[in-house]
Amino acid sequence: MSAINPLDAAAALGPEASVFEDLWRDVQPETSRRLLVSALICFAARGFHATTTREIARLAGMSPAAVYVHYRSKNELLERIGITGHELVLRDMREAVEAATGAADGVRRFMESFAAWHVRHALLARVVNYELHNLPPDAIAVVRPLRAAMEALLRDLIDRGVADDEMAVEDSEAAVLALISLGIDVARWFGARRTAPSDLGPRYGSIALRIVGAPPRPTGE
Amino acid sequence: MSAINPLDAAAALGPEASVFEDLWRDVQPETSRRLLVSALICFAARGFHATTTREIARLAGMSPAAVYVHYRSKNELLERIGITGHELVLRDMREAVEAATGAADGVRRFMESFAAWHVRHALLARVVNYELHNLPPDAIAVVRPLRAAMEALLRDLIDRGVADDEMAVEDSEAAVLALISLGIDVARWFGARRTAPSDLGPRYGSIALRIVGAPPRPTGE
Repeated sequence: MSAINPLDAAAALGPEASVFEDLWRDVQPETSRRLLVSALICFAARGFHATTTREIARLAGMSPAAVYVHYRSKNELLERIGITGHELVLRDMREAVEAATGAADGVRRFMESFAAWHVRHALLARVVNYELHNLPPDAIAVVRPLRAAMEALLRDLIDRGVADDEMAVEDSEAAVLALISLGIDVARWFGARRTAPSDLGPRYGSIALRIVGAPPRPTGE
Repeated sequence: MSAINPLDAAAALGPEASVFEDLWRDVQPETSRRLLVSALICFAARGFHATTTREIARLAGMSPAAVYVHYRSKNELLERIGITGHELVLRDMREAVEAATGAADGVRRFMESFAAWHVRHALLARVVNYELHNLPPDAIAVVRPLRAAMEALLRDLIDRGVADDEMAVEDSEAAVLALISLGIDVARWFGARRTAPSDLGPRYGSIALRIVGAPPRPTGE
């Protein structure tokens, strides 16, 4: 917790900061991509409702009218951001789990990567999760199965781990919920506490193993 | 996750809903109290920046000018809400822990109550945690020790539990962070999933015992 708004610092970096480099890399033209990053920063800093297209344009170094060359509205920008965020985190978590040797190792790797992801992409994660209810129904229809697939990734690991006697879980629904929730909330508190991603991942990986009743194991690989 | 905004439903209830009854009960006159509840609903639904004093007044059934009879600005309303929220949750968690028989039982009772609190006071918790960076420095100075006291409550339990061999914790800093974080994030997802408080508390109480390496124990009392 801090009196300094961590988002102010991010907004001051502007849309060219390295953390945004892997977002919308294939979006052309460049001005179109820059508007997405600007909208992301504005939504994270002040919320979707309080953000105007004028502010998004200003941060991108463009005129307000230029926004409408690329996007119908700020709603369309939110839609693109919401869908990208969900696609990206699911892809990254699938990769993390694929490298695992066994189910418990999968849960540990999931949690390590998921926590670190929410540090790296804290602004994106805040918009994705806290502005979810502002997405139009079409976008919700895209996003809902992506969220379900993320939960299924963990549920499958837990089912396998229990079947193989690698884990002891009485309530797998609560375990899945808690693991996802722990990761998402990182995006809220990160910035005030400034825990480095390389440090947080392994610590949360160990906690994940406790939640699923698996013995501790080496972290960080 | 849901296409329906759970806050819409809460806002439709209006400031007289029973969940708000235990907030600001001693604030007089009644119009002054009603403005606090209206501001809470507006901030939770659309965010602090997007909310106007006109909207707060309308939900309270008052004229915009009447707001300024009671409060200098919407900032003052946020300040009152932020401080009340922190005072209330700390008081309730202290009560929960006082009833405990031993440190592990204290952790279980803390988590049960903390999770249930974030269901019951989901709107208040969202404003308290997601608008924290919008509080003025004076309010931050009040709130910071309340947050520290909440963490100290858990840290003391863990220290005692480890000393008494009731718990096995390698990393008490991460454990405290995870337990607090799990509870706070309930306010984000609650409404979309509709898990009842009486159900969630015991399930999260069991997970808390796992996180601190304590054996399972009876829940609910």
